[in-house]
Amino acid sequence: MTTSSPAPLATEADPALFRDAFRGHPAGLAVITAAGPEGPIGLTASSVSSVSVDPPSLVFSLSGRTTAPLLAAAETVVVHLMDSGQADIVRTFATPGTARFTADQDWEWLPTGEPLLRRSPWSLRCRVDERLDVGSSRVVIAEVLEVRAGTPAGEPLVYHDRTYHRLSEASALS
Amino acid sequence: MTTSSPAPLATEADPALFRDAFRGHPAGLAVITAAGPEGPIGLTASSVSSVSVDPPSLVFSLSGRTTAPLLAAAETVVVHLMDSGQADIVRTFATPGTARFTADQDWEWLPTGEPLLRRSPWSLRCRVDERLDVGSSRVVIAEVLEVRAGTPAGEPLVYHDRTYHRLSEASALS
Repeated sequence: MTTSSPAPLATEADPALFRDAFRGHPAGLAVITAAGPEGPIGLTASSVSSVSVDPPSLVFSLSGRTTAPLLAAAETVVVHLMDSGQADIVRTFATPGTARFTADQDWEWLPTGEPLLRRSPWSLRCRVDERLDVGSSRVVIAEVLEVRAGTPAGEPLVYHDRTYHRLSEASALS
Repeated sequence: MTTSSPAPLATEADPALFRDAFRGHPAGLAVITAAGPEGPIGLTASSVSSVSVDPPSLVFSLSGRTTAPLLAAAETVVVHLMDSGQADIVRTFATPGTARFTADQDWEWLPTGEPLLRRSPWSLRCRVDERLDVGSSRVVIAEVLEVRAGTPAGEPLVYHDRTYHRLSEASALS
């Protein structure tokens, strides 16, 4: 015999409650870059997810008024999957008005035209295949053309409730 | 002065390397349920992400041959965002052939027709708006119709490298 919990009350989906739900949903962190009209552009995204292995494809969504529309319109992008060794760059690309693509962020133009953050543990050069507008955001589906394996210099990095966490043996569930 | 790291070697996107990249990318965990043709169906997904607040919308992707096509075809689904208190249910719905919707998983049919896992800390009833086939997978975009806030009974739950982790104050980056 088990005791049933009371059914939680249903609430119409108001924006504040929806935000609360996802504030508690952990996510990995990526920095997505592309060639913009006036130089390299990039943003931190907590929405990157693998979709398919054949062809290798991923999905992410972007919102915001300045960089996001330019990034979503790019034909090719580089998705950098970041670890805790790159937390400073992740924070910088998540914060409006910060200096990006500085010399100490160690980046270069790829021969194919996209900016690469060279210290990223994994960099996936992608061709954007689909763009869908959802409210004021855009969902992007992209096929991975090239995978660059860098040198990991940290632990797995997680975003949750506006805080960065790192995973370790101590955080593993037994 | 900063020293540049060597540019990582580019590799054409082979499936094994693509899998390696995403195996190291942490993700939150959700169980997505719907009414199937012969009863309740559900799957664990590590691909759920918020897209837009207005209208409240989310995206996920599904792959697999049995439950995934049925779930992706449903008109409405419930996305349960799970914490470590629900790790057993998350494992069950991630493992083929396990017994699902048993009495001790504490579920009920909602008046609107979907199965609800009552112990989930957050349950989002959604209407599916878009479905896109990508390889053998399907990307689903859905609008959230109702948010149910349950009783959290654990810490934030993260999937990484085939292991479950929980976040805590000890895992936060200073």
